[in-house]
Amino acid sequence: MNKILPAFAIAFGCALSAFAADPAPNGISLPDGYKDWRLLSVSQRTDNNTIRAILGNDVAIKAARDGKTNPWPDGAVLAKLAWKNAKHEKWDAAIVPGAFIQAEFMIKDGAKYAATGGWGFARWVGAEQKPYGKDANFVQECFGCHTPVKDRDWVFTHPVKLP
Amino acid sequence: MNKILPAFAIAFGCALSAFAADPAPNGISLPDGYKDWRLLSVSQRTDNNTIRAILGNDVAIKAARDGKTNPWPDGAVLAKLAWKNAKHEKWDAAIVPGAFIQAEFMIKDGAKYAATGGWGFARWVGAEQKPYGKDANFVQECFGCHTPVKDRDWVFTHPVKLP
Repeated sequence: MNKILPAFAIAFGCALSAFAADPAPNGISLPDGYKDWRLLSVSQRTDNNTIRAILGNDVAIKAARDGKTNPWPDGAVLAKLAWKNAKHEKWDAAIVPGAFIQAEFMIKDGAKYAATGGWGFARWVGAEQKPYGKDANFVQECFGCHTPVKDRDWVFTHPVKLP
Repeated sequence: MNKILPAFAIAFGCALSAFAADPAPNGISLPDGYKDWRLLSVSQRTDNNTIRAILGNDVAIKAARDGKTNPWPDGAVLAKLAWKNAKHEKWDAAIVPGAFIQAEFMIKDGAKYAATGGWGFARWVGAEQKPYGKDANFVQECFGCHTPVKDRDWVFTHPVKLP
């Protein structure tokens, strides 16, 4: 057993590293399990022809359902997933998700990310999940783009209303 | 205690009935907890100006991730949630969810729903979750509309691709 276990551990470690995305240049790691998070909202952008789902971790979902999103609480994480627009092959007027473009995250920690509105920003591009940005300054691009929604705690997403 | 408990039971029963949607005319009940289901896909329809999220129960999510959706397995339930298109107040080119329109469900049970492709259909309309249809024949409208995707096990939804 003592000889077999380390071999398993090595094999398992390799398998894990083969699938783990590199961290963003600002040190943020790709959040675990975001694909299983619950729905916060959807959107479609006619300027770059993308369709999106916005998911939230448990803290974010609770805040959204309680209507306490200005500000969002520390610990909230929003995941914005974007796909290229495609046309449904059997319904011409339906825009559906084509190729996966990117996963973007906003992580709320008022103290840690005080310089950028209390939010840590990160993006992983494409199916290969390549971290976006040459160095940590990439967040200025994210933060700048979010300036129009400064009064909404820097968040574009309107959580959906559900009965 | 014996006098108090029934009073609580009645009060609790009333509270429950105030929030429980009526079943659809074909007897299907609004699935519990669908708001917490995971993401299957998103879409936007330019013919009726709606934006949608499609969620799936655990059976549906597993089937989608395993690529086993033609046919979908018995027990899979798909929830299609639709909102009226709205324009983001700070990003003109972004279509975001406005008023909630309806929640539609497809429930796979090949034996029970053999007459309609193995799927039970139901829809609840608006924030008040009013069951759609005057009688059980409303499913012919659902089924008819899904005929173009007969070869995809009657399902329009393309599950999203994620890394």
